[in-house]
Amino acid sequence: MFALAAQITGAVATPEQPDVMAFVADSMLLMISGMVVVFMAAGFCMLESGLVRAKNAATISLKNITLFSIAGLTYYIVGYRLMYDGVDGGWFGTIGVWSPDPLDEPDGSLASAADWFFQMAFVATAASIVSGTLAERIKLGPFLLFIVVLTAVIYPITGAWKWGEGWLHVMGFQDFAGSTLVHSVGGWAALMGAIILGPRYGKYAPDGRIQKPMPGSNLPLAALGTFILWFGWFGFNGGSQLAAGTIEDVSAVGKILANTSLAAAAGVLAAFVMSYVIFKKPDLTLVLNGAIGGLVAITAGPLDPALWQGILVGAVGGVLVVVTVPLLDKFQIDDVVGAIPAHLVCGIWGTLIAAATTQADGLSIISQFGVQALGILVIGAFVAILSAAAWYALKLTIGLRPSVDDEIAGLDKTELGMEAYPDFYKG
Amino acid sequence: MFALAAQITGAVATPEQPDVMAFVADSMLLMISGMVVVFMAAGFCMLESGLVRAKNAATISLKNITLFSIAGLTYYIVGYRLMYDGVDGGWFGTIGVWSPDPLDEPDGSLASAADWFFQMAFVATAASIVSGTLAERIKLGPFLLFIVVLTAVIYPITGAWKWGEGWLHVMGFQDFAGSTLVHSVGGWAALMGAIILGPRYGKYAPDGRIQKPMPGSNLPLAALGTFILWFGWFGFNGGSQLAAGTIEDVSAVGKILANTSLAAAAGVLAAFVMSYVIFKKPDLTLVLNGAIGGLVAITAGPLDPALWQGILVGAVGGVLVVVTVPLLDKFQIDDVVGAIPAHLVCGIWGTLIAAATTQADGLSIISQFGVQALGILVIGAFVAILSAAAWYALKLTIGLRPSVDDEIAGLDKTELGMEAYPDFYKG
Amino acid sequence: MFALAAQITGAVATPEQPDVMAFVADSMLLMISGMVVVFMAAGFCMLESGLVRAKNAATISLKNITLFSIAGLTYYIVGYRLMYDGVDGGWFGTIGVWSPDPLDEPDGSLASAADWFFQMAFVATAASIVSGTLAERIKLGPFLLFIVVLTAVIYPITGAWKWGEGWLHVMGFQDFAGSTLVHSVGGWAALMGAIILGPRYGKYAPDGRIQKPMPGSNLPLAALGTFILWFGWFGFNGGSQLAAGTIEDVSAVGKILANTSLAAAAGVLAAFVMSYVIFKKPDLTLVLNGAIGGLVAITAGPLDPALWQGILVGAVGGVLVVVTVPLLDKFQIDDVVGAIPAHLVCGIWGTLIAAATTQADGLSIISQFGVQALGILVIGAFVAILSAAAWYALKLTIGLRPSVDDEIAGLDKTELGMEAYPDFYKG
Repeated sequence: MFALAAQITGAVATPEQPDVMAFVADSMLLMISGMVVVFMAAGFCMLESGLVRAKNAATISLKNITLFSIAGLTYYIVGYRLMYDGVDGGWFGTIGVWSPDPLDEPDGSLASAADWFFQMAFVATAASIVSGTLAERIKLGPFLLFIVVLTAVIYPITGAWKWGEGWLHVMGFQDFAGSTLVHSVGGWAALMGAIILGPRYGKYAPDGRIQKPMPGSNLPLAALGTFILWFGWFGFNGGSQLAAGTIEDVSAVGKILANTSLAAAAGVLAAFVMSYVIFKKPDLTLVLNGAIGGLVAITAGPLDPALWQGILVGAVGGVLVVVTVPLLDKFQIDDVVGAIPAHLVCGIWGTLIAAATTQADGLSIISQFGVQALGILVIGAFVAILSAAAWYALKLTIGLRPSVDDEIAGLDKTELGMEAYPDFYKG
Repeated sequence: MFALAAQITGAVATPEQPDVMAFVADSMLLMISGMVVVFMAAGFCMLESGLVRAKNAATISLKNITLFSIAGLTYYIVGYRLMYDGVDGGWFGTIGVWSPDPLDEPDGSLASAADWFFQMAFVATAASIVSGTLAERIKLGPFLLFIVVLTAVIYPITGAWKWGEGWLHVMGFQDFAGSTLVHSVGGWAALMGAIILGPRYGKYAPDGRIQKPMPGSNLPLAALGTFILWFGWFGFNGGSQLAAGTIEDVSAVGKILANTSLAAAAGVLAAFVMSYVIFKKPDLTLVLNGAIGGLVAITAGPLDPALWQGILVGAVGGVLVVVTVPLLDKFQIDDVVGAIPAHLVCGIWGTLIAAATTQADGLSIISQFGVQALGILVIGAFVAILSAAAWYALKLTIGLRPSVDDEIAGLDKTELGMEAYPDFYKG
Repeated sequence: MFALAAQITGAVATPEQPDVMAFVADSMLLMISGMVVVFMAAGFCMLESGLVRAKNAATISLKNITLFSIAGLTYYIVGYRLMYDGVDGGWFGTIGVWSPDPLDEPDGSLASAADWFFQMAFVATAASIVSGTLAERIKLGPFLLFIVVLTAVIYPITGAWKWGEGWLHVMGFQDFAGSTLVHSVGGWAALMGAIILGPRYGKYAPDGRIQKPMPGSNLPLAALGTFILWFGWFGFNGGSQLAAGTIEDVSAVGKILANTSLAAAAGVLAAFVMSYVIFKKPDLTLVLNGAIGGLVAITAGPLDPALWQGILVGAVGGVLVVVTVPLLDKFQIDDVVGAIPAHLVCGIWGTLIAAATTQADGLSIISQFGVQALGILVIGAFVAILSAAAWYALKLTIGLRPSVDDEIAGLDKTELGMEAYPDFYKG
């Protein structure tokens, strides 16, 4: 060890002699960031538990921890290599189980397991988006089977197009930490599910108006979930710099954290004001989703915007959340937690506007907008089609929905045979 | 990049060639610490949600996420430069929007955005203190307007006196991580608000005795909030070393973490024993505040005390919490969550006692006590006067309190039109 | 500072001139890891608060924050030196208060306070295990006195045998992050307590069958607790590499994080499937404990197994949780939160199977299994005997249990005189 350290700390780094300090710093960045991104699973679980009714809160908790586990295992078994291994300008990588490089053969830039760990946490995020939208009326089995398809096939393939250095990357598509690759992908899958599944029983009257509001059962938990997501997003965006071992890299991470937090704050205030203007009272649920909308929006380009630009990007995200929620209701698309506005709509917005501050080499700002639009459309179409196919296949085979009686009784009783709050809840 | 790395890792650092390793380590310390200090916002939100009655739990959640957002934006727009830019022994800095140094022009010690991010999280902490004390009987609008004043004007100015290297710093005032600059500042603002706002309707009988205890509605959430604060405090105090790239600095951070955790533990046990002695039963709420009191107390000087001294500092903090809570009730000052004992009283205690272990160059221990007392008094007077002025101005214009009927109905219904726990709570 | 930095960054590290970069990286690893391990206290508190009935939720919160505080103080006063100071192949170290090395005399490898901080968090974990098993029917006083014995005497002594480089270490016993030293130790103490204390009143009928299920009162909080533990475990196992300043060390931490997360995921899915097979429905509580079981199992050897091996280790952990829970009920051992299956049984499993992938120098795989079995047995016997003695002593003196009436009323009312959820819970 001493010899190794000695040969490096005093010398120019070469491929054979990686810079130990940079290797350590980069790996630490990815591991610490990965940890807090993993912790976002707790954030989604609390947000969704808080926004469903009490009779479905145990089921949504079970879904969240199980989908996170599925995501980790599929990413190990197939996803990581499908997304990163030898894509080389193409459409997807290789099929096979991933294994870390032997410890003594680092790849020259950072610990390979640190990278896997960090990227794994991202897949789980995409999967978490789906569970919230479809809560309260989907059976456990088909939901979890869909998660297998999403995490093993859909997410890694679209991921390969950009982050695996596939064809969209070659065209110059920009998506720093995944406004499209993570959030819109989860959002499209959720939207297709919501359409095919249909709304909760009794939510909409025959004339299409909201018949019965179904408010969340535990709003402080929903607030907690939002704060956890905000915290985790520092790892999500900051870690996506992928390096921290130079003055330039670590300064970039700092700027990313500032932009990320300010965009979230702007999303909160924009959603506060908008909900006050439209509904005459601020709406806590919309404000929480405003934070998430601001975070999703800045995710495609958290480094290059000046801070006032980051604030604008986040504020528009907050506005979009507030105006999209009633729009979905108009189409009777029942999104229990508001994930489609926050993740899909703001994901599209953030990816588009990233063109204003970040252009690929050789692309004009107009061309960059074109490439962004192309990426949004192609990824959207791909995810929507594959998700719809998967949802339909599940609907036609094992079925997606419990009986109306079961839905009214609550999934905790019918799917799990237990109650989330047995000492409080009286039916 | 390679050339840059090479020129540095093997050479003496000079102002023109900052030590990359130290730059990276210092920036990472501030960014990681900043993240967990931001996460303290979740801790305050859970603590306060758990300690209010169910009918006000959604409102306090909304206040917490909104005040955090306001604090971030005001600190960007005016606070940071007012506090740090060119104070130079004086009373405040410059007025203007902050922007990070261009990435390729680091200031030679750490990433400027990492410093902003870390300091921004501190303002939010001060603001969070106010919301807890005033919960359950203040309207949203005036509360949030006060937060703008506190975070944009009051906090940065007193911060400039010490951390901006203003006049108190020149005199040798010691406040390592903000027992006074953060916690007492928030505490004074809360105290003025509590006096001007008055107690919750029905809390005190005409003879001044407590007429109706109003216990917190969700004590496990309050416990969670305390644990989150404890966790976040490691970033709060540890990060305030501001550097981790040398053996001396990183060892200092380690000592700070040990002192911080032991002071909190001592605060817990002291509050446990004291509440048992006084009330014959341990009181969970007081014990939780004992942890916070211990943490606040050690914050002014977490590095220099020997660990047994840190334990004493924290234990006295825990005792102070238990004895101050009934004292406030005697004066009919209604502090819903106990923030004034924990943050203001223990902040004063911690700042004073820091003189015993830390003296500025050229100051005797007696002189140091004098400087500490002076700082406490002047900052207290300044914050109390400005806060009182702001609260009165709001009271006389838009008014501070909802109607008694609205207060009885609960602010969730009247301010937000929603319930925090609609499936459980029956009025 | 500059001179110090200069003399080191460009030179071979020697004992007199420690490698600054490694010193910083190792200390940062332990401090960041220690922080998240401390945060596991919140995880245990939420898991246990969620799995007890509402009438005992405030008491279990109080127990958790108090035991954590006791653990920190005893470890400072006696535990750390008893465990680490001069064990030298023997049975325990010295008796006395710990103090960090003066800041300017580092021990050559990492900040001594960072190590204390990290190890302190582990003791608290062991103590947290006990509170969950014995919830709802033990008085506060004797419980906390037992925690003093456990953290001041029992844990440090068995810890000395391996991590203090005592006799078991010399024999080649492997326990990377404490499947036995932390989790089984806590588990044995809990098992002895459960036997001596007896089950909750009314849990078992005279014929030994479960008479009255006593489901947890807040399952989303229990899920939150599990996610927090999962998050904290990255520090628990990753930090136990104790070094991150070289390519080899930081890559090892990465592999550990991957194995840790995959073992937890496998534990979840195994418990999901097993509970579905046995009970026809997935059981959220068992699935949460499956995650913990997988984590405990991989803890003895998270570095050496290939990832597919880590998955197997975790999956068996999940299965063991599901099959052990009914087994305990058969013996009328009332483990309120399922800590004995998750921590003791999976701790034994993980320690045993670690022999398959990790062998001490000079030990064959068969001999290694023998040493593992010996360590498990001797530590188990030691902890069981001392714990039983302590529990009996407490039982015969101050008594362990509240009256049956008090137990039925709930400990929140009788021990604390308050309610955890006064606005919801109606007796």
